[in-house]
Amino acid sequence: MKLIRYGAEGAEKPAMLDDAGLLRDLSAHIADITGDTLDDATLAKLRALDPADLPIVEGEQRIAPCVGNIGKFLCIGLNYSDHAAETGAAIPEHPILFFKANSAIVGAYDDVVMPRGSTKTDWEVELGVVIGKTAKYVSKADALDHVAGYCIVNDVSERHYQTQLTGQWTKGKSCDTFGPTGPWLVTRDEIADPQNLDMALDVNGKRMQTGNTATMIFTVAEIIEHLSSLMTLHPGDVITTGTPPGVGLGMKPEPLFLKKGDVMDLTIQGLGHQQQKVDQDA
Amino acid sequence: MKLIRYGAEGAEKPAMLDDAGLLRDLSAHIADITGDTLDDATLAKLRALDPADLPIVEGEQRIAPCVGNIGKFLCIGLNYSDHAAETGAAIPEHPILFFKANSAIVGAYDDVVMPRGSTKTDWEVELGVVIGKTAKYVSKADALDHVAGYCIVNDVSERHYQTQLTGQWTKGKSCDTFGPTGPWLVTRDEIADPQNLDMALDVNGKRMQTGNTATMIFTVAEIIEHLSSLMTLHPGDVITTGTPPGVGLGMKPEPLFLKKGDVMDLTIQGLGHQQQKVDQDA
Repeated sequence: MKLIRYGAEGAEKPAMLDDAGLLRDLSAHIADITGDTLDDATLAKLRALDPADLPIVEGEQRIAPCVGNIGKFLCIGLNYSDHAAETGAAIPEHPILFFKANSAIVGAYDDVVMPRGSTKTDWEVELGVVIGKTAKYVSKADALDHVAGYCIVNDVSERHYQTQLTGQWTKGKSCDTFGPTGPWLVTRDEIADPQNLDMALDVNGKRMQTGNTATMIFTVAEIIEHLSSLMTLHPGDVITTGTPPGVGLGMKPEPLFLKKGDVMDLTIQGLGHQQQKVDQDA
Repeated sequence: MKLIRYGAEGAEKPAMLDDAGLLRDLSAHIADITGDTLDDATLAKLRALDPADLPIVEGEQRIAPCVGNIGKFLCIGLNYSDHAAETGAAIPEHPILFFKANSAIVGAYDDVVMPRGSTKTDWEVELGVVIGKTAKYVSKADALDHVAGYCIVNDVSERHYQTQLTGQWTKGKSCDTFGPTGPWLVTRDEIADPQNLDMALDVNGKRMQTGNTATMIFTVAEIIEHLSSLMTLHPGDVITTGTPPGVGLGMKPEPLFLKKGDVMDLTIQGLGHQQQKVDQDA
C-alpha cells in the first residue's frame, strides 16, 4: 500500500495510490497519516478498502511529506561502506546518530531553498524508515515489526555549516527545506527486503549517486535495535539511514555543490521518485 | 506571568500561578500552552485576566513540562566561559548546536530514568528559552521580541553515550526523561535581564553547580540571531543555552555520576525550582 499526503502546508489530506496511479482520498477513514494512524490495525483496515470505492483526488495537487507531525527525524551518518571509503572515513563501530530539525521536512517535489550565503549545499539520497509501533529495547530480530513502512529522504546537507561552523553536524542538516520526505509511505509488506533496494540521484539529469541498501554498514534492523536502546522510538518518528557514494563533497578533482536553478531527481526501488528545484534565500 | 501545565502525560491542562502560589486553571481560555498560544496577543489576553476569577486547581497534581508539543529542542553546548575552562575546551567561535530528542522532555518533578547499563549520567542546569514568535534571519537587536518566556531545563547527559558511542553528542542527550523542563514558563516581561540570573544545582543536598547567566559566551539574543540564520525557529521551540561549571564530568580528582536514588534540585532566579529523583531501567 502506498500512502500519500496531499495539499497545501497545514491543510494536508490523506490518500492512497491506486494501481492506475490515481490518488484516492482517505479523509473519510483517517484524519491524517501520522503516528496516530500508522499502527498495524489501522493499516490493515486501510488495506481492506477497495480503492475504487474511494473518491479520486482531482486536479494538480502538492505532494506533501508522506508523514505528518513527525516527532523525531533521526539520521544515521556514514552508513554505507562504499560512501565511507569515498570520504576517507573509518567504518564506525556503532551507528552514528544526529538529528535533522523536523522543521526541515518538506514534500518530495517542494523546492530546496539554500540559506542566505550558502555555497556548499549537497545532496544525499537515503532510505527513510517510518516507525509504526513504539520501540524501546527492541532486538534486531523483532525490529522490523516496529516499522510502518519506507520512503525516500533527501538528506540535504550544507557542508560548511556541518563541519566548519563550530562542532556537531546538525547545523548543516537542519536548514528549512533540507528534508524532502516521500512521495509515498510504502508499507513494509510491499518491501520484501529493505537491504536490497537500488537507489540513485541525478543532478540536472546527470547521475551522481548510484547505490543499493545492500552496502549499508548497519542494517535497518540493527539501527532500530541500537537507537531503541538509547531512547523510545515513537510512531511517526522517521529514521533516515545514510547515503551511498556520489555526494558532491566527494567529487574529484573538486567538490561540487548545488546552485540556484539546479534540479535533483531521486529514486529508490519500489519507493517512487522525488524531484526538487534548488532556490536560495535572498 | 507564570504559566504551568499540570496533569498526567497526554492529558495536561493549562494554568497560571497566582500571587499566593495557587494554580489557577486556564482551560476556559486556552486549550493548552503550546506554540499556538505563546504569541504576544494571547499572552496579553491571559495577563489581563484576574487570577481570582479562575478556578483553583485542587489536589496534588503532576507538574508537566511547561510547554506542550515542543517542536525542536535546540541545545547550545559549552556556552559558559567558566564551564569551558572547567572542561578544558576552547571557547567556541559560534554557538555549538545539538538537538535533544523532544521525546526526552518531562516535567520538573518527574523521575530521571537512566537507560539500562548507563554508568555516566550527569546533570546540567540550564536557562531554557521558549520561542513565542517565528524567527528567521532575526538580528540580535530584535531577537528577544521572539521569546515568549524562560524556564529551567536540566540537560541530563550520559557522557559515555555522548562521546564514546561513535560520533555526535546527541546520543547522550536524548534518552527518555533527559529533559526536565519547567516548572513554570515565566513570560519575558518578568525577566528584566536574562543575562543576570543566578543558577544552582544540588545533588543529594550538596551544591554542585553555581553560576550566573552573565558568564554565557553567547547571549540569548546572539544565540537566536545565529540559529535563525540557519533555520526557522517556530513558536513552541525551546532553546536550552548551556550550563555553568560543576557538572559531574568535571569533578576532581574523579568524575562523579548519578546513581539510582540520587536527588537533583535545580533553581534559576525567578524561574522556580525543579527536583528529580534518579531511577534506572532494569
